[in-house]
Amino acid sequence: MTKSLYGKTADGKEVFSFTIKNESGAEIELLNYGATLNKISVPDRNGDFADVLVGFDTMEGQLSCTDSQGRTVGRVANRISGNGITIDGKNYRITKNIDGKFTLHGNHEYENAVWNYEILGDDSVKFSYFSADGNEGFPSNLQNEVTFTFTDKNEVKIHYDCRPDGKTPINVTNHSYFNLGGYASGNILSHEMQIFAKYFTPMNEDSIPTGEIRSVENTPFDFRIPKKIGRDVSSPDEQLIIGRGYDHNFCLENYTGALREFAMVYDPESGRKMTCYTDLPGVQFYIGNYMDGSQIGKGKFPLTHRSGFCLETQYYPNALNNPDFIQNLFDENHPFVSDTVYRFSAE
Amino acid sequence: MTKSLYGKTADGKEVFSFTIKNESGAEIELLNYGATLNKISVPDRNGDFADVLVGFDTMEGQLSCTDSQGRTVGRVANRISGNGITIDGKNYRITKNIDGKFTLHGNHEYENAVWNYEILGDDSVKFSYFSADGNEGFPSNLQNEVTFTFTDKNEVKIHYDCRPDGKTPINVTNHSYFNLGGYASGNILSHEMQIFAKYFTPMNEDSIPTGEIRSVENTPFDFRIPKKIGRDVSSPDEQLIIGRGYDHNFCLENYTGALREFAMVYDPESGRKMTCYTDLPGVQFYIGNYMDGSQIGKGKFPLTHRSGFCLETQYYPNALNNPDFIQNLFDENHPFVSDTVYRFSAE
Repeated sequence: MTKSLYGKTADGKEVFSFTIKNESGAEIELLNYGATLNKISVPDRNGDFADVLVGFDTMEGQLSCTDSQGRTVGRVANRISGNGITIDGKNYRITKNIDGKFTLHGNHEYENAVWNYEILGDDSVKFSYFSADGNEGFPSNLQNEVTFTFTDKNEVKIHYDCRPDGKTPINVTNHSYFNLGGYASGNILSHEMQIFAKYFTPMNEDSIPTGEIRSVENTPFDFRIPKKIGRDVSSPDEQLIIGRGYDHNFCLENYTGALREFAMVYDPESGRKMTCYTDLPGVQFYIGNYMDGSQIGKGKFPLTHRSGFCLETQYYPNALNNPDFIQNLFDENHPFVSDTVYRFSAE
Repeated sequence: MTKSLYGKTADGKEVFSFTIKNESGAEIELLNYGATLNKISVPDRNGDFADVLVGFDTMEGQLSCTDSQGRTVGRVANRISGNGITIDGKNYRITKNIDGKFTLHGNHEYENAVWNYEILGDDSVKFSYFSADGNEGFPSNLQNEVTFTFTDKNEVKIHYDCRPDGKTPINVTNHSYFNLGGYASGNILSHEMQIFAKYFTPMNEDSIPTGEIRSVENTPFDFRIPKKIGRDVSSPDEQLIIGRGYDHNFCLENYTGALREFAMVYDPESGRKMTCYTDLPGVQFYIGNYMDGSQIGKGKFPLTHRSGFCLETQYYPNALNNPDFIQNLFDENHPFVSDTVYRFSAE
């Protein structure tokens, strides 16, 4: 574990970098700015290391970030429709940060905060952030803790513990963009993706779920058997057109509330493989359709179209406006406690 | 609270009756045989009391019971397909008590047991039962507690607390047959039923869910707006034909893990109303299609066709064989803890 000053925010708050190196020489970097997972350096099949996270390597870059690279997103990741949320008959309007129409990522409240930190040991850092009652329109105070651990088995473990003092929706996630070839290796369309989901949630033109639960069968959304991300991405499918590619919630199988594998990604070029686990019912699979090269990332490489993919563990988006979805409503007796694991290997 | 000897089982175990009377004179009766809810006497709109539970009023009747009237059902209520269950790759065959084809109600293990009891106060009794590892083929020991409370607001509260020592499926429920006109008032087809469910799970010819989640819209299964149970029951609908009427799992809205209203039933004749609450994702709505008058119940009235309806709170049936359903798999760190409330009023 090494800790060093990374930079300062516009209002002068100190941002620190935390690097955890394991016994094999693999390492991750964390920032208390946005409780960010900023780097994952793991070996390919020849033992050569590369950083598989697309993002930024300077404080200036972090401050220019608009697409949530590596950040902890909350209080409610993904979209909430413009009508806000209604709890016990009372409507709460949530900040509409997208064209004044709807909410994305809770207006980035968590991502732009400098979190408190606590080094828990050689392999683990806990970040904490207090979100006040009323922030972005959400009811109830909410104390958040996100703990990152990097194991000798090249597992990145993320533990969320978010405790409100009254009813409020919570859907905290990590928004890392992965490229198993390394951040500078081009687009991710040749990665092989497997997602254990028989259903997904189609969305409207604002990328908000319509409420339908649709079978993936005979659609480009069938990743039950591994296939290249790019294989069907250009199909003339209405949902792919709306999302400009994959940007959809998948309904993960075997939801019990316990951790289980939900996806496997393999890069045939490097041999790197990522196996993914969550205890939540859904995941947003996004492939950087809105990345256009206009932002400059690590090593001064531009963040080009589809140069990273995301697997954001979650409750289905906008669930409080879709009563048939599992409801991500929590309270003082029922905290949001969740685990995500990304495990890296090579073959 | 009064306790009295009710009778003895064939092997000589003593069965006790527990009667809880509230300040309004309404009362319920419980039995430690099958942890049975045996009687609910509540007033109609004129203040006249009637027992709204269809069942038995003698020990002999209880021993003749084949349709689970009032019983606590477990370890897994409803059906499990003939292939049993598979946990961590290991298959467990479960006793197939229906024509050697599949399992119903865990072969009635819980229903035919004499439970331990503890009187918790004037308004509450706790029953407990230990189900051993291997019983009916299920893995892991399972300690069960079911607590019934009857409040001065005419609420019957059922609290389940079932703690295994390893992985096992649990779906414990209560199988009461209600008739808001009183047990001797004929069939329940004129009761008005409202169920807050936009989807239900169609089933195959063994009454086991196919895995499909189907919209209730434009089907006889749409109870979102109250309607008489009998209104559409004779529709030439494939699912009604398979069930010989309603005998289906409904996917209840607003699932958060917290208690919420899921159904309302009203008998226009007597004015009695029952409002139902659960924290589980589903309910089995059954209307006594298999009752044929051959069994003799309370007051020596025969248990005639559709003389009672059931609202059995549950995880969707056979979930472990349908990975897209929420999985009712529990373990030593994750007990089955659930509440059901049936609240009675009149108007």
